[in-house]
Amino acid sequence: MGLIVQKYGGTSVGSAERIRRVAERLLATKKAGHDVVAVISAMAGVTDGLIKLARELAPQPNEREMDALLATGEQGASALTALAVNALGGKAVSLSGAAAGIVTDGVHTKAKISHISPRQIHELLAEDYIVIVAGFQGQSPQGAITTLGRGGSDLTAIALAAALKADDCQIFTDVDGVHTCDPRVVSDASKIDEIAYDELLEMAGAGSKVMQSRAVEFAKKFGVGFEVRSSLKDSTGTRAKAETTNMEDVVVRSVSLERDQAKVTIRDVPDRPGCAGKLFSVISAANVSVDMIVQNASSTGTTDVSFTLHKDDLVLAEKILASLVPEIGASAMAATTGVAKLSVVGIGMRSHAGVASRLFACLGEAGVNIQLISTSEIKIAVVIDEGELDRAARATHAAFGLAQPRPAAG
Amino acid sequence: MGLIVQKYGGTSVGSAERIRRVAERLLATKKAGHDVVAVISAMAGVTDGLIKLARELAPQPNEREMDALLATGEQGASALTALAVNALGGKAVSLSGAAAGIVTDGVHTKAKISHISPRQIHELLAEDYIVIVAGFQGQSPQGAITTLGRGGSDLTAIALAAALKADDCQIFTDVDGVHTCDPRVVSDASKIDEIAYDELLEMAGAGSKVMQSRAVEFAKKFGVGFEVRSSLKDSTGTRAKAETTNMEDVVVRSVSLERDQAKVTIRDVPDRPGCAGKLFSVISAANVSVDMIVQNASSTGTTDVSFTLHKDDLVLAEKILASLVPEIGASAMAATTGVAKLSVVGIGMRSHAGVASRLFACLGEAGVNIQLISTSEIKIAVVIDEGELDRAARATHAAFGLAQPRPAAG
Repeated sequence: MGLIVQKYGGTSVGSAERIRRVAERLLATKKAGHDVVAVISAMAGVTDGLIKLARELAPQPNEREMDALLATGEQGASALTALAVNALGGKAVSLSGAAAGIVTDGVHTKAKISHISPRQIHELLAEDYIVIVAGFQGQSPQGAITTLGRGGSDLTAIALAAALKADDCQIFTDVDGVHTCDPRVVSDASKIDEIAYDELLEMAGAGSKVMQSRAVEFAKKFGVGFEVRSSLKDSTGTRAKAETTNMEDVVVRSVSLERDQAKVTIRDVPDRPGCAGKLFSVISAANVSVDMIVQNASSTGTTDVSFTLHKDDLVLAEKILASLVPEIGASAMAATTGVAKLSVVGIGMRSHAGVASRLFACLGEAGVNIQLISTSEIKIAVVIDEGELDRAARATHAAFGLAQPRPAAG
Repeated sequence: MGLIVQKYGGTSVGSAERIRRVAERLLATKKAGHDVVAVISAMAGVTDGLIKLARELAPQPNEREMDALLATGEQGASALTALAVNALGGKAVSLSGAAAGIVTDGVHTKAKISHISPRQIHELLAEDYIVIVAGFQGQSPQGAITTLGRGGSDLTAIALAAALKADDCQIFTDVDGVHTCDPRVVSDASKIDEIAYDELLEMAGAGSKVMQSRAVEFAKKFGVGFEVRSSLKDSTGTRAKAETTNMEDVVVRSVSLERDQAKVTIRDVPDRPGCAGKLFSVISAANVSVDMIVQNASSTGTTDVSFTLHKDDLVLAEKILASLVPEIGASAMAATTGVAKLSVVGIGMRSHAGVASRLFACLGEAGVNIQLISTSEIKIAVVIDEGELDRAARATHAAFGLAQPRPAAG
């Protein structure tokens, strides 16, 4: 008995048949004695269809109107889900983000939630309704519809769980939880039962796109425990929570993979304050998203700066750098495609030495050459040849004992 | 210089290319010095697609959620139109019906507008925006999205024109105005330049579905003049207005045709108060829409009652009547399909005798047998064999001199 927030992604509501299954699950949760708030994404394909139409009309669509347009996808899917619950004999009401009391700032297409006034949700719950909220959206103080950016329905769910002081939050998706590695690459990859917010955040940054990072950050900030689980099965998924001592027993929680990367190296960048800053501020202003940045210690007054980015952004980056490299006094630029990123993530790393050396040794034994290395407190990432990624993933997954049953971590 | 409300139907915004053309027309109107409010329908096909999905989930969809679902069609098309205007260098903002201040009663799927608070529209117009309002919808005092029934965008436009005291209201559609008859049947059918509200209302009831009747009634009540015209051409259309003396010079304004009708006759209905009432209240409770009702004068204590209905409703009507006919003491029921309705409409009829006799004579000369006759103050309708409808239409159109150039009416 308690209040449960459930979030269903676009694949989970991708057809009438799937919407009906979501409705059945909502009803089952209600019948088990819980109050239920559901957050629904747009049906798979709908958002992309709307974006395509918009781009036909406007190469750079007005952001206010883009928000008004895209928000209709979640509103429609929410109404359909409510229709399905009612048709199955339940009581459900759908609400737009605005009607649900989600107030955001006025920054269109990437609004931040300022606060939630869940008065109407509470009233409807008291009247025994299953309340179905359109994900991904809110309303600015001026009354304009705003959206929360890609994956924003995750944030809607976590933020509602916090505002409603929900007893649980369940993120339903088309996989049955967070895995130790991509099961399509590593056959004995296993579902992770418990994960720390920080690990999920690092994994998202490392290419494992399970949940929107902002949603996880929000959950961390407000201590919202949640579970990532499958909308297609009935099995338990992965529970995300604040770190516990016990969690540190596992040194490495997962191996994350990111393909389609490119690597750029700028040679002989003058080792002066502001040089690297200028480089990346110009690139970022062009909306090129840069990932790993590596700069070696300088002894000669110049240094080499390398970074990775998605290969699709490389042409634009090269164009920008062609004039920028001489401008900042660097000597040359070299770009490579066909590289990928492998990262090991785990909060247990903090208290265990030797993770890096074990990773490098295992990759060495597998004959995988490391091109770049970058580390954070709970992550080690390496850039390697994309053709060697699968082999490297299997070797790393085995070396850190991630296959089921898990051996005691070292 | 003034305020113009323009309404565009689903075909007019049926593709990105057509939306762009609408945007160009809005901009041209704005550049001509007018303030512009546009009312937009859902893109052709979108509403039907949503209804199909809803019916897959719920044979009798919850009406509140149906409204929430269908309203997204108009909201999306409005946002796309605003995107297109902005992309062409104009300034446009889209508003949902609720945001536009359209307040309705709480009767879902066929809400009535209670009042309009156009504060936000006025503010946006003052800031030089083209204001684009999602048609067909409003908001109940409780904050639920409501819709105004089929063709409701016409009503949105007329009601906004009234509330904003607009200088003109233009209903853009895929035909270039109201015609003297269906041009596919009568090759010399011509566009009508001016028409009275009452004529439009009778024509809608007679099968000429140019505009939603409620919208015309609203226009009549509040004296909103409007023009029905083509979104594909630049020609002037048909202007609807309150009746003028001059208008009465034309005895018959148009010949309206309605196919796919069925005729039911109930024999020997007891001529007692309440008998016919019971008949039609039971039929209407089953959502069967009955059109012409004809009852002959009684001399024997019983009478025959005939009525027409759409042929698709006949099976249901027959099922209901099978038990109802003996219950009310009638003797038998006879049903005919393959009939159609031809109506002549014109406010000039009121002051001219002999319209009925001229119609009957011309049909007789054309060898068309009349099965039922029903008249109102400004309409005469006959039921005839559907196979004879086209011939009857051409003969009637000619007999009343409706081809261009119009002869003086008698």
